[in-house]
Amino acid sequence: MTGPLQRLVSALSRLPGIGQKTATRLAFHLLRAPEELAEELSGAIHDVRAQIRLCTTCCDLTDQDPCAICTDARRDASLLCVVSQPQDVMALDRIGMFRGRYHVLHGVLNPLEGVGPADLKVAALLRRMEGQEVREVVLATSPSVEGDATALYLHKLLVPLGVRVTRIASGLPTGGEIEYADGITLGRALSARREM
Amino acid sequence: MTGPLQRLVSALSRLPGIGQKTATRLAFHLLRAPEELAEELSGAIHDVRAQIRLCTTCCDLTDQDPCAICTDARRDASLLCVVSQPQDVMALDRIGMFRGRYHVLHGVLNPLEGVGPADLKVAALLRRMEGQEVREVVLATSPSVEGDATALYLHKLLVPLGVRVTRIASGLPTGGEIEYADGITLGRALSARREM
Repeated sequence: MTGPLQRLVSALSRLPGIGQKTATRLAFHLLRAPEELAEELSGAIHDVRAQIRLCTTCCDLTDQDPCAICTDARRDASLLCVVSQPQDVMALDRIGMFRGRYHVLHGVLNPLEGVGPADLKVAALLRRMEGQEVREVVLATSPSVEGDATALYLHKLLVPLGVRVTRIASGLPTGGEIEYADGITLGRALSARREM
Repeated sequence: MTGPLQRLVSALSRLPGIGQKTATRLAFHLLRAPEELAEELSGAIHDVRAQIRLCTTCCDLTDQDPCAICTDARRDASLLCVVSQPQDVMALDRIGMFRGRYHVLHGVLNPLEGVGPADLKVAALLRRMEGQEVREVVLATSPSVEGDATALYLHKLLVPLGVRVTRIASGLPTGGEIEYADGITLGRALSARREM
């Protein structure tokens, strides 16, 4: 196999879940696909790195700051949903049931891997409590050991501030990931949220 | 999901075998991976389109013309292996048993889909018969209906030219694809090639 093709196969096979054979199949597809697809993919990879950063309000990924959700006046600014990663905002927002805003922690507490509160966007969350009229915080970390511990930690921090703190219902299977749950399960978990 | 990220997910999900969820996972990986991987992938996609063309001798994909195999003096120029696609050159050459050169047809005869001899690199193959001292042509199209028909067609064309025409042994399961066969099966098929 010649230089550029080999380089493309190598680069593709470094992606998660893409082995040598899949990488080869994708490389040949990219070689033969319409010019427009190859240019679009190459350009999108570049743009996503160049343009995406964190919203200074909610810490979600965005290409404009503040992000589209934080600037959407139709969304209830007094209702915050706290998630661990940007994928979870996408998964929750896709079902269209939540009309508040989000806050992305970028991780969960994990003492074994050395992830403490300072490594998460907790300070930014507390700043939002000062500035805005927040009525309720829904803790939507995954129902895993780390996700539950993170929710418990935030509950202790937030309750003294006089805000209502709720946790999404564990309609999700324990140990499951929010990112991959189906809409019905997610919707049920949101509706059945309860006081902690 | 914001603009550039959505564009990247859309572009990735247009690749074969990549659905919406895998595309999202890959996009987030590309966003967070070291800058070097993203640049390498983006650049390789561009380069492969800009630099890869067909070798004017064997019609394989290459970034230099004639290709590395056609200019390799250690390879036997009197022994040609005819395959239907560039992936088959890679699969056969990987096992390191064949020390001749290749010819890539870029397809097989398929009357139902309107693919006739003029759509394949048959004329280029016949030109090689004139110029060079070709002693044997190994027909290594897949043992499918179309692959067998293509081999039969080439056999009829080549035998009158006084060249030895062989067919790889059907150690490969009928209907299987050369591209995905394991090395042992491919090696056995090459060794046991026989007169047509």
